[in-house]
Amino acid sequence: MNFSSRLERALTQQNSLLCVGLDPDLAQMPTHLRHHDECTQIEFFCRDIIDACAPYVCAFKPQIAYFASVHAESVLEKLCHYIKQHYPYIALILDAKRGDIGSTATHYAREAFERYHADAVTLNPYMGLDSIAPFLQYADKGVFLLCRTSNPGSTDIQGLRLENGRLLYEHLAHTIAQVWNANHQCGVVVGATFPEELARVRALAPNLPILAPGVGAQGGDIASTVAAACDSKGLGLIINSSRAILYASSGTDFARAASRAAQTTRDAINICRKMPAN
Amino acid sequence: MNFSSRLERALTQQNSLLCVGLDPDLAQMPTHLRHHDECTQIEFFCRDIIDACAPYVCAFKPQIAYFASVHAESVLEKLCHYIKQHYPYIALILDAKRGDIGSTATHYAREAFERYHADAVTLNPYMGLDSIAPFLQYADKGVFLLCRTSNPGSTDIQGLRLENGRLLYEHLAHTIAQVWNANHQCGVVVGATFPEELARVRALAPNLPILAPGVGAQGGDIASTVAAACDSKGLGLIINSSRAILYASSGTDFARAASRAAQTTRDAINICRKMPAN
Repeated sequence: MNFSSRLERALTQQNSLLCVGLDPDLAQMPTHLRHHDECTQIEFFCRDIIDACAPYVCAFKPQIAYFASVHAESVLEKLCHYIKQHYPYIALILDAKRGDIGSTATHYAREAFERYHADAVTLNPYMGLDSIAPFLQYADKGVFLLCRTSNPGSTDIQGLRLENGRLLYEHLAHTIAQVWNANHQCGVVVGATFPEELARVRALAPNLPILAPGVGAQGGDIASTVAAACDSKGLGLIINSSRAILYASSGTDFARAASRAAQTTRDAINICRKMPAN
Repeated sequence: MNFSSRLERALTQQNSLLCVGLDPDLAQMPTHLRHHDECTQIEFFCRDIIDACAPYVCAFKPQIAYFASVHAESVLEKLCHYIKQHYPYIALILDAKRGDIGSTATHYAREAFERYHADAVTLNPYMGLDSIAPFLQYADKGVFLLCRTSNPGSTDIQGLRLENGRLLYEHLAHTIAQVWNANHQCGVVVGATFPEELARVRALAPNLPILAPGVGAQGGDIASTVAAACDSKGLGLIINSSRAILYASSGTDFARAASRAAQTTRDAINICRKMPAN
């Protein structure tokens, strides 16, 4: 089964478009965990978040920078293994935004798919299709390519107008849909902070899965994101939320608070999709 | 002293524009090292390469993917520490091609500059200036931004023509030189495989340091690279070679062979610069 079909199955079975981003920032961690060393704090925190949110999500998205900055790659390995073992139907998206060529890209693909066993990885497309190819050689895995990111500065390059009249991110969405996605392994990252751009990408790429970060702390709106980016079946969209769920409480009830926040967000998304909220 | 000045000092003191890339690929490692475990092989190999090449280089550029794919981040830490301790006048450029926003970029900056103590890091500019800003907050550190990379697929995006008539990589080089480089912390990556494009970037950005990979195994030519990309002082250019030096021999003499290859390459570059070859 190709990545696109597997992803659709995860969304359907879980009746959820919600992805919880695992961005464990020690500075925001519950205070009662602080007597542990840094790696243990991150492991306990993330494992409880995973268990608390699993009923309400289609995907988890660990952000590797938060682990790399504190020497915690081995913790990320354990958490990825934990997710695959206990929640095999939930998609594991490694947020790494890698982008390199030839044998280096092969090593990054090995990192994502063999070391962390991710189902998909976020990639930066600036170096072109041959920088993506080593990832696509894993036939059952997927890649989410940065297209129109959620930050204000994303216009600097992604918003440049080409001589063919299209904006760069529009050209990219079209190229990915028409050329790069031959084996149904590609998706795109488009910020929920830009609903008009989400709608443009959906129009140019009717069948590409869209990963939309930026709901919650960054100010993206659920209703306009769903309206702009769901495909014709009410699928094809993964809405990521990190901080608003991870740090819903900084007390000993952090996991319960995260669980409630995940459920509320999942339900709010489903109401906009006109799905039963369970 | 800002990064640009420190880099110029390294080039001048070492009388070398050569950077040796540390891309330790287990499949290409000398056979006599293979009775060690993977991490030890990488450590022994790289340390001998560093000692052998240090007299002839202005910079070392470890490529993090080769370490990440085999759980060897701790080896990379040791090697970076070794370079800073024994060869403090040689620039340490972490080749990571990171690119992300806000607090994630802050964590990647911490990874590069606090964990690995790099003097500079390669970054992907696709997400815009605000994705670079957290790195620039380290006032004495530098960033090399991907501009026109050495791979064939780099035209897919970098070679797109904008409505203002410029190609995307030209626009980027101009923007970096005029706007992003306010504190002399920026350089650009332009493949030695594209001498015409190197000359265009040098014309648009007369003072930006250029990191040029692609000499050697990828087919870039030293004479045309030096002619196209050196600044008016015969500086401002770092030519990277990895495989041709690292794997000059697969025997027990690998370090001596690497040393000779580094010296030969350094001298060939200096002849093109019309510098005494030492």
